[in-house]
Amino acid sequence: MGVVVQNIGRAEQSVIDRLAACGVATVHEAQGRKGLLASYMRPIYPGARIAASAVTISAPPGDNWMLHVAIEQIRAGDILLLAPTSPCEDGYFGDLLATSAMARGCRGLVIDAGVRDVADLKTMNFPVWSKAISAQGTVKETLGSVNIPVVCAGALVNPGDVIVADDDGVCVVRQEEAADVAGKAEQRVAAEEEKRRRLAAGELGLDIYKMRERLAEKGLKYV
Amino acid sequence: MGVVVQNIGRAEQSVIDRLAACGVATVHEAQGRKGLLASYMRPIYPGARIAASAVTISAPPGDNWMLHVAIEQIRAGDILLLAPTSPCEDGYFGDLLATSAMARGCRGLVIDAGVRDVADLKTMNFPVWSKAISAQGTVKETLGSVNIPVVCAGALVNPGDVIVADDDGVCVVRQEEAADVAGKAEQRVAAEEEKRRRLAAGELGLDIYKMRERLAEKGLKYV
Amino acid sequence: MGVVVQNIGRAEQSVIDRLAACGVATVHEAQGRKGLLASYMRPIYPGARIAASAVTISAPPGDNWMLHVAIEQIRAGDILLLAPTSPCEDGYFGDLLATSAMARGCRGLVIDAGVRDVADLKTMNFPVWSKAISAQGTVKETLGSVNIPVVCAGALVNPGDVIVADDDGVCVVRQEEAADVAGKAEQRVAAEEEKRRRLAAGELGLDIYKMRERLAEKGLKYV
Amino acid sequence: MGVVVQNIGRAEQSVIDRLAACGVATVHEAQGRKGLLASYMRPIYPGARIAASAVTISAPPGDNWMLHVAIEQIRAGDILLLAPTSPCEDGYFGDLLATSAMARGCRGLVIDAGVRDVADLKTMNFPVWSKAISAQGTVKETLGSVNIPVVCAGALVNPGDVIVADDDGVCVVRQEEAADVAGKAEQRVAAEEEKRRRLAAGELGLDIYKMRERLAEKGLKYV
Amino acid sequence: MGVVVQNIGRAEQSVIDRLAACGVATVHEAQGRKGLLASYMRPIYPGARIAASAVTISAPPGDNWMLHVAIEQIRAGDILLLAPTSPCEDGYFGDLLATSAMARGCRGLVIDAGVRDVADLKTMNFPVWSKAISAQGTVKETLGSVNIPVVCAGALVNPGDVIVADDDGVCVVRQEEAADVAGKAEQRVAAEEEKRRRLAAGELGLDIYKMRERLAEKGLKYV
Amino acid sequence: MGVVVQNIGRAEQSVIDRLAACGVATVHEAQGRKGLLASYMRPIYPGARIAASAVTISAPPGDNWMLHVAIEQIRAGDILLLAPTSPCEDGYFGDLLATSAMARGCRGLVIDAGVRDVADLKTMNFPVWSKAISAQGTVKETLGSVNIPVVCAGALVNPGDVIVADDDGVCVVRQEEAADVAGKAEQRVAAEEEKRRRLAAGELGLDIYKMRERLAEKGLKYV
Repeated sequence: MGVVVQNIGRAEQSVIDRLAACGVATVHEAQGRKGLLASYMRPIYPGARIAASAVTISAPPGDNWMLHVAIEQIRAGDILLLAPTSPCEDGYFGDLLATSAMARGCRGLVIDAGVRDVADLKTMNFPVWSKAISAQGTVKETLGSVNIPVVCAGALVNPGDVIVADDDGVCVVRQEEAADVAGKAEQRVAAEEEKRRRLAAGELGLDIYKMRERLAEKGLKYV
Repeated sequence: MGVVVQNIGRAEQSVIDRLAACGVATVHEAQGRKGLLASYMRPIYPGARIAASAVTISAPPGDNWMLHVAIEQIRAGDILLLAPTSPCEDGYFGDLLATSAMARGCRGLVIDAGVRDVADLKTMNFPVWSKAISAQGTVKETLGSVNIPVVCAGALVNPGDVIVADDDGVCVVRQEEAADVAGKAEQRVAAEEEKRRRLAAGELGLDIYKMRERLAEKGLKYV
Repeated sequence: MGVVVQNIGRAEQSVIDRLAACGVATVHEAQGRKGLLASYMRPIYPGARIAASAVTISAPPGDNWMLHVAIEQIRAGDILLLAPTSPCEDGYFGDLLATSAMARGCRGLVIDAGVRDVADLKTMNFPVWSKAISAQGTVKETLGSVNIPVVCAGALVNPGDVIVADDDGVCVVRQEEAADVAGKAEQRVAAEEEKRRRLAAGELGLDIYKMRERLAEKGLKYV
Repeated sequence: MGVVVQNIGRAEQSVIDRLAACGVATVHEAQGRKGLLASYMRPIYPGARIAASAVTISAPPGDNWMLHVAIEQIRAGDILLLAPTSPCEDGYFGDLLATSAMARGCRGLVIDAGVRDVADLKTMNFPVWSKAISAQGTVKETLGSVNIPVVCAGALVNPGDVIVADDDGVCVVRQEEAADVAGKAEQRVAAEEEKRRRLAAGELGLDIYKMRERLAEKGLKYV
Repeated sequence: MGVVVQNIGRAEQSVIDRLAACGVATVHEAQGRKGLLASYMRPIYPGARIAASAVTISAPPGDNWMLHVAIEQIRAGDILLLAPTSPCEDGYFGDLLATSAMARGCRGLVIDAGVRDVADLKTMNFPVWSKAISAQGTVKETLGSVNIPVVCAGALVNPGDVIVADDDGVCVVRQEEAADVAGKAEQRVAAEEEKRRRLAAGELGLDIYKMRERLAEKGLKYV
Repeated sequence: MGVVVQNIGRAEQSVIDRLAACGVATVHEAQGRKGLLASYMRPIYPGARIAASAVTISAPPGDNWMLHVAIEQIRAGDILLLAPTSPCEDGYFGDLLATSAMARGCRGLVIDAGVRDVADLKTMNFPVWSKAISAQGTVKETLGSVNIPVVCAGALVNPGDVIVADDDGVCVVRQEEAADVAGKAEQRVAAEEEKRRRLAAGELGLDIYKMRERLAEKGLKYV
């Protein structure tokens, strides 16, 4: 505890933007169904879809001091990601911190804890994915760390990993795999287009995916 | 496991539509306060109110194969209802399956598990009531069954039973009781109209329902 | 059980309105971070912000009789606040009770249990903060009490205390402290304005709050 | 609501006892993995293993009146099974009711709610599987029903169905399938004996169940 | 925050011991079903039954400094009761603190948070009722208060109130009502003895409590 | 998915045994309060305290095939540790798998899911720390991986890391840090001995740790 790593790598911005365009569900599939944060991480308002490089924060329960430290480490296009060292639902972050983070070019916040001033954050168009909404304030007494690997809502996140977040939840993509995953995700998007057209026309997945034979082999009985 | 029942009864469409018009809370009261699914079943977006005949699905955890099988069994006006065989929050269903289901005339989905692509589903105007929102994908390896009785979110649902769902939650009405319940629900709606008018005018429930005497008998003391 | 206290004190309306203007997060800070209800208390629709004097209700699980009794005790500008005597998620309150409460000038409901007819309540612009949404009805068989002190969602609420509620949650302010808290909350709002301006201009909290020295003393290392 | 069915069928006592001997996990497998109650149903003390015919109870939240009614319906060897009509953790049952039930020959209680006097119940050797332990008392004001089908902790239970319960949880076996399931369960017990011997001797499941080829086909890679 | 009240009243020791003898369920009934802590408060080992005067602690999340302060305030026969200012499951208390508390005559701990070294605490015969068991340590950075009123697990506890705790949970009795409640609880114990004898002899509660007529009036039907 | 790593490093057995002797709470403190699994991981019976090298398993929900694969990779003194790829409470493991694992020298199981046959496992003296107890069986259809890094109950575990588990929960120690942590943990044990003696003699932590001055500086007031 008590370490701030100042130089972290980041994926290329163009790659990050391509991941944002694909969305969480597609990216998660494209990278082999790994890296999803727990489903209790929900957006504070619907409709946002972003991708950004993670500035990670490990913070004690009920202590948001490290958020101030982390904001200095933000580069335009980053996202803050906070994991408490033990479960906590306090409101670590509100409109003042969001104002500061936005001034540094921050795209949003992912926090395995609580957030407050959510009506203001929505007005500011600052997206947050959190475990809770809580007006409970925090103190500034104990050190944590910035830009170290953390486990956030059940997923390992390294500083500089790409976070993709939308109404389906939050997914982390390893910085070094981001370009490859973006390519695979775009292929999925393209492939789905054709399937969507056929399904909309009334064809069945049973036929498109040729499932009938395998279902019969497994013993499915129609009565 | 491994059975698909192809011919199921359904309530009359006009009865189903009358139940939709009454809504969950009224229908639930009208049938004697039974058939309500657990309150953790929430709409993925507010404002939808539907009723439809259930095509039921029993599926293994993390395996959505039977959804493809079930879609073939849909008739226009039906709803899909999925109960996993053990608790699971995976995202069994997304925009491609919704496209396919809508092409068959499906009115929505009730799922005691997770769903994904929720922004797309909202755009498509395809209502879902689910336990979770999760981008976590599923496999297609293990058989389940379609159109057998299932327990979904704590309520027994037979294939062809009528599902009523709105912002208050989800309620099941037995197919054979649907006409009777629709009648009773409409009576409640009518009766409530008069009560609403009197209450809006400032009359008290204590007087309208003649509660004062019984409260006094029970020993209520005003101090 | 079985007591209705008819005369309760209330804070001045102007003080109550000043608290509403400040919002939950600011009021909670201003009174020393006390009085917050548990974070599971969520608004049934976003965007409402109110303050009001509490008419408190202690009710048995699954029995909403006392709500009818409580509505008679409402004065214009009050809020109903219900705490069940054991955990319960039933829908104690719906559009008819809301119609009656609104006719008495009620500003909303805080309930550590369930509520129903939520689409109607939204249309009526009647705000509710609740633990659950549930169509499950209740009975009218057992007495509770009105306007006694209750513990609601983890917070002690006396009748006549001021309830402040918005998208961040619900906070209680003691009636006798309301004026003082309103003053302190307004000071916070004013002080935050200047900070917000500086943060928006790119200054860091680390500098504005002079945190660097204390962080170094605690041993924070930049690497 | 408000019905007591007095004559219910029961499985043969010898069949019931054979199911008890096999235990929950084996019985559940033997009947095709159906009928398991939710895993939150836990024994109040470890070590009990029973099977018995269910006298079912549907009760309002916080109201245990029907337990008194149900006890009259017990025959020696039965078990009481209570499902509340909405989620409730109150302590419906304690040592006095247990004394009465034992006097009728009752073998235990399965309750999707709370129980109290658990130290006494352990001393009395009266096993209970419950959702909660709570000293919170209940009232006797509202009718429920006895010996109707209920959904208890996610499983449909008909009166007279066989309940098997041990430290692994609770499983329901349909009365009409009990003899068949008992036979299949005993076969599993016998088959497992041989497997256990071979596994204890160091043979691997991979070899005993001939899994290596199928794993290779699916693409498992050893590195 | 930051206050230690040194002189608190306490109920008479003989009264406290009489409450312990009656147990939680009986005491809770005797005082009109109030004062019960939430059912998630569980003993770390079964079999303890105590009553004691509460030394109350309000502590920040993840900070156990005030426990050290509180131990100095213990008089022989007291119990420590800790409520965090926001939900927390950290292990605030372990064998060293228990050693210190026992040296002051402390009878146990009630904590709406976590505890650790539970195997040692059991060996030491130091009973604890907690929300969680967790090895997660805490810091000593932020003040709380000792011997102020707190809401613990949903119940208001004043310093010097009597805490009764056993395998059924935890109940608080107001200091000033303790003698009265002890008397009523003992009456219940005496009255139950006769009922237990009759029930054990096979008499039914339906007859002992004369319920049959009222059940019939309410409309109960035997079929 | 679909990878089995056959050669993993392990800490020295003597180091592992020293960690076991210190226990979870002490080891967790000694390594700077990191590596603790979530507090919902509970032992299926009290009293076990072990340390062992982790053979890690990533498994699909409801599919225990990889447990058979993993058992072949066990060396005497190892522990199995399973993390499902999405939340699941099914009973992946029972007495037959335990028999097989024990035959290979396995010391126990840590599983972020369910386990069954718990009465047998207790009799066999095979300790398990799990999220749930459930008789719900699993299938063998989908590959996972063995001996890859996994996030289990919120903590990152690499194959070969040392798992320490007792009644306080489960903690992971990095293989390469194990010797250092064992040394620090033993120092803590030794240091605590002296403190325990002084505390047992009635000295206060306030004095032993010289807290009075710092408390006064922070503003603690005795009244």
